[in-house]
Amino acid sequence: MMSEKTCRLWLPRLGELAPAACDTPQSVAEYELKAGCAALGMPAPALVEDADMGEAYAFREGGAGPEIVGGPTGLLYGAYAWLEAAVCGEALPEGTQKPFYGLRMLNCWDDASGDIERGYSGRSLWFEGGRMAWDDGRVRQLARALASVGINVLCVNNVNVRDEAALLIEDYLPDLARLAAAFRPYGVKLMVSIDFARPVAHGLDTADPLDERVQRWWRDCADAVWQAVPDLAGFLVKADSEHRPGPFTYGRSHAEGANMLARAIAPHGGVLVWRAFVYNCQQDWRDAKTDRPMAAYETYAPLDGQFDDNVILQVKNGPFDFQVREPVSPTLYAMPNTRLAMEVQLAQEYTGHQIDLYAMNPMWRELADQLPPETVDAVAAVGNLGRDWNYTGHPFAAVNLFGFGQYAWNPWVDPERVIRRWVRLTYALPGGQEDALTAMLLASRETYERYTAPLGLCWMVRPGLHYGPSPMGYEFDSWGTYNRADRDAVGIDRTSKGTGYAAQYPEEIRAGFEDLERCPERLLLFFHRLPYDYKMPDGRTLIQRIYDDHFQGAEEVDAMARTLEGLDLPQPDRDEALRRMAMQQANAREWRDVINTFFHRMSGVPDAHGRKIYD
Amino acid sequence: MMSEKTCRLWLPRLGELAPAACDTPQSVAEYELKAGCAALGMPAPALVEDADMGEAYAFREGGAGPEIVGGPTGLLYGAYAWLEAAVCGEALPEGTQKPFYGLRMLNCWDDASGDIERGYSGRSLWFEGGRMAWDDGRVRQLARALASVGINVLCVNNVNVRDEAALLIEDYLPDLARLAAAFRPYGVKLMVSIDFARPVAHGLDTADPLDERVQRWWRDCADAVWQAVPDLAGFLVKADSEHRPGPFTYGRSHAEGANMLARAIAPHGGVLVWRAFVYNCQQDWRDAKTDRPMAAYETYAPLDGQFDDNVILQVKNGPFDFQVREPVSPTLYAMPNTRLAMEVQLAQEYTGHQIDLYAMNPMWRELADQLPPETVDAVAAVGNLGRDWNYTGHPFAAVNLFGFGQYAWNPWVDPERVIRRWVRLTYALPGGQEDALTAMLLASRETYERYTAPLGLCWMVRPGLHYGPSPMGYEFDSWGTYNRADRDAVGIDRTSKGTGYAAQYPEEIRAGFEDLERCPERLLLFFHRLPYDYKMPDGRTLIQRIYDDHFQGAEEVDAMARTLEGLDLPQPDRDEALRRMAMQQANAREWRDVINTFFHRMSGVPDAHGRKIYD
Repeated sequence: MMSEKTCRLWLPRLGELAPAACDTPQSVAEYELKAGCAALGMPAPALVEDADMGEAYAFREGGAGPEIVGGPTGLLYGAYAWLEAAVCGEALPEGTQKPFYGLRMLNCWDDASGDIERGYSGRSLWFEGGRMAWDDGRVRQLARALASVGINVLCVNNVNVRDEAALLIEDYLPDLARLAAAFRPYGVKLMVSIDFARPVAHGLDTADPLDERVQRWWRDCADAVWQAVPDLAGFLVKADSEHRPGPFTYGRSHAEGANMLARAIAPHGGVLVWRAFVYNCQQDWRDAKTDRPMAAYETYAPLDGQFDDNVILQVKNGPFDFQVREPVSPTLYAMPNTRLAMEVQLAQEYTGHQIDLYAMNPMWRELADQLPPETVDAVAAVGNLGRDWNYTGHPFAAVNLFGFGQYAWNPWVDPERVIRRWVRLTYALPGGQEDALTAMLLASRETYERYTAPLGLCWMVRPGLHYGPSPMGYEFDSWGTYNRADRDAVGIDRTSKGTGYAAQYPEEIRAGFEDLERCPERLLLFFHRLPYDYKMPDGRTLIQRIYDDHFQGAEEVDAMARTLEGLDLPQPDRDEALRRMAMQQANAREWRDVINTFFHRMSGVPDAHGRKIYD
Repeated sequence: MMSEKTCRLWLPRLGELAPAACDTPQSVAEYELKAGCAALGMPAPALVEDADMGEAYAFREGGAGPEIVGGPTGLLYGAYAWLEAAVCGEALPEGTQKPFYGLRMLNCWDDASGDIERGYSGRSLWFEGGRMAWDDGRVRQLARALASVGINVLCVNNVNVRDEAALLIEDYLPDLARLAAAFRPYGVKLMVSIDFARPVAHGLDTADPLDERVQRWWRDCADAVWQAVPDLAGFLVKADSEHRPGPFTYGRSHAEGANMLARAIAPHGGVLVWRAFVYNCQQDWRDAKTDRPMAAYETYAPLDGQFDDNVILQVKNGPFDFQVREPVSPTLYAMPNTRLAMEVQLAQEYTGHQIDLYAMNPMWRELADQLPPETVDAVAAVGNLGRDWNYTGHPFAAVNLFGFGQYAWNPWVDPERVIRRWVRLTYALPGGQEDALTAMLLASRETYERYTAPLGLCWMVRPGLHYGPSPMGYEFDSWGTYNRADRDAVGIDRTSKGTGYAAQYPEEIRAGFEDLERCPERLLLFFHRLPYDYKMPDGRTLIQRIYDDHFQGAEEVDAMARTLEGLDLPQPDRDEALRRMAMQQANAREWRDVINTFFHRMSGVPDAHGRKIYD
């Protein structure tokens, strides 16, 4: 049993961490089963390797008792699945178990300085002061957690490659190799974010992807990198985005840029993950024609079919940037001849900073229901990890790391089942309390949505910080993030009568979004500009619906606080969760009052129920 | 003649900087006259010391020609006055010349790190990396500039005393003494900002001003400080303000806190300058009763008469914080039995960041006309200096340092005369161009006011940065800085029917502010909440006045740009001024459009002249 002062995650009832001598997935699987079964007081199943099965596994009755059969990492995944089922008291699944997505990636936005961009769990686990440095036990504990939910690729540095982070593929290769060795026994391969313009730092006068010297530079670089880390998963690139360099500097397309890098690393089996987060971050707010959500589609859809086989285009789940409520990105529908990864964000940048509760599986399930999961080849999640004692700041935020792994393995997995599993593995609460915590987490996203920006409006957050309300904070800025609220109406018309954004979707979906009757209520103000007295399907006016949601959202948080108070959580989780809940209550009240006051000042309409709206 | 690559300030036609061997004001005066007259090709007057005259001087005809008679620093001031009159072609003034204010202070907000809080001219001239370090020539050049306009006290570090800055009165005393020696020949005494809670860093368990151990600690400290720097002017303290420690922590009044320190330094002749910038920076925006401008009066007025003779209470010119347009602080009227300093800000924190032109003498003259100058004992200015080649970022921003000295010497000095003098001393432009630059600077504040927050509203700036528009940026924050604009009206009623702020003024002034007919137009929205269709005295509606001012302000900047283009300024001043003017034009357009759009969205009222207001 792990000490309660250290990491809890969802592993506390497994055995001790395997020693470093266990340096293959098979040996870790064996160790985990032995130690775990001993801790649980039950016999361990036998492991039978079938190399052809790769990451897959199956449970079966062998001659001498239960067996797990699987490929090298399949055995490891099978071992965790077996132990988790035992802890949870669940039946073992029948038939071969294999992941839906082959690439299940975590992207860490860690800077070489040790800061984490949009990190809410402390400093980097493997960078500090411009160098790589880590606690081996903590890193292996994390590797174990990732393996236990099947995450198999970890990009170790921020997509914004700054300062010494560029040295990861140069002077720091020995460190990278050592870190790779710590993750390797858990079936986790590393990936590295690179700087597209790096050759210029080495004396070349260009980073033009069509320049032979540049191509040679990257080939030489890749040779050195894969010599140091032969199983490196690949490179991740953010180019021509938010002031990062890229192919546009040289008049080249993103296919030309990505393919050049892909060809340098192809001989080593690497994949080139290219982020599709390109938009004009110098927009003039006066320009009502340009509509930022349209940017990725405009840039990438015409390039469909032009990317090499080892290029993966990584597209954020929505067309903006991890807002609480966005439609699925139209780019994901538009590139059938391109390998796509969908990117989600575990770091709660816009969703409560790991202070407010926000369990994400319900959102991912909505995505799976809207977008056929086979549309994409891979999934990537921006990490929510850091050096905090519990890795995730809020102890409950671990549910999103756990849940992402389960989602990546099976996109249709029931969100409630995932959350209940995490609760049971982590806390072993009495039945009624387990139900209460599961229900609270399951509803947490809807609650958060109610008290923040209404009905798909997005971006009513404090600029820069992205926590707390600021209804006009982004209104006159250059980021393309406007709500254009005035005394009569709010929202942007993104139908064919407006910016035309909706036309980027397949026809049936477009028609649904454009039709006020069929447009999902939660996205109403994403697609439509509506007067405050617009009648909603349930008969309420738009403004009344905004007020109601905000009063209700804040009330729900108060109810959550009462529920939390009644849970027999172990320490220090209980104190940490209660402390953060008090902050969430204050945040929810602030959102409620600021949003209601803002729209009251705009509309002049009083609340139909006479509740307090401040002047 | 100084090199054009180095500092210009207003000294370029004087002689070379005096060598370090000139280590008294008298010897500097002698050197300056000799070198300056040689450069001008004219004979130098004789210097006659009259110790009783102190800082005063007079010009007279002696037996062998013209003489300057004066006290030790009076001779220095007289020498600069003589040279400046010669360069400007002005007649010498008759009679004894002496400064109106005995203390004419510059407060530098330099951090030990080398950063300058609200600094727009580069890094600190005397701090870097936690230590004191400076270029002796640049520091003496600055001392010379200060002496040439009669500034006699320089506080070297930020009132927010952070990190190694606390060592100025401890380990860094030898450095402080060396810096004092560089300024001493120019009649400039140093002052130091201190941390009220400093004894706690030295093992005491309290900084309670009534605790004898604390009193002894400060006495010992003062003994050591004045031993190192015998002519140190005193200590400057920001206490109980914006998270700084202070007497409130111990249940003591600010008089008790200030007097304790004053008594420790009195034996050495030091003055204790105590900043009256106290307000609740954790205000709840929902609380419409609390009105931040009322805070300083409420804290200090009841303490009138309780401060020791060597305490000076330093009060900002307005009740907020150096906004473009504020009424005079009511605290300044309320403390006849307290020595007061009025604090102004040369650093253009809210007034254009030394990018936009904003010459301040017209504002100070308004202050002098509203508040009898004898109401205060001293003036202090937050500095606008830094390590930039020209010391002030924008070469024209030097006019405010120059102008502050002239204002401190004579509060009734004609702003146009001050500005013209600075232009003539600095650039020696042909007549028409001198007129044009003088007029442009003279009008620059009114222009800036027109295109920014309207009619005394204040705080419509980008939070934190304080450059550029953000009409609701501070609206839901904790700083007490609200405009409460809604679809019908804007502003806060600060009359007796509202927050009652106006009642802090003497009756006649109160009545004027409260009366809509007599309230200065530029302060209308500071004192009154008014509907957009309120009829102004000239028949325009309030909303139309807002639109008109903003269109006019931006047009005026475009006209300034054309004027500037036609001036034969020396390089690099010309390029630097043109570069910044392009930024000011963009800034003025941004303010115009954001403010007009904001109020148009709120009010729904179109511009009467059909000019473009964006949706």
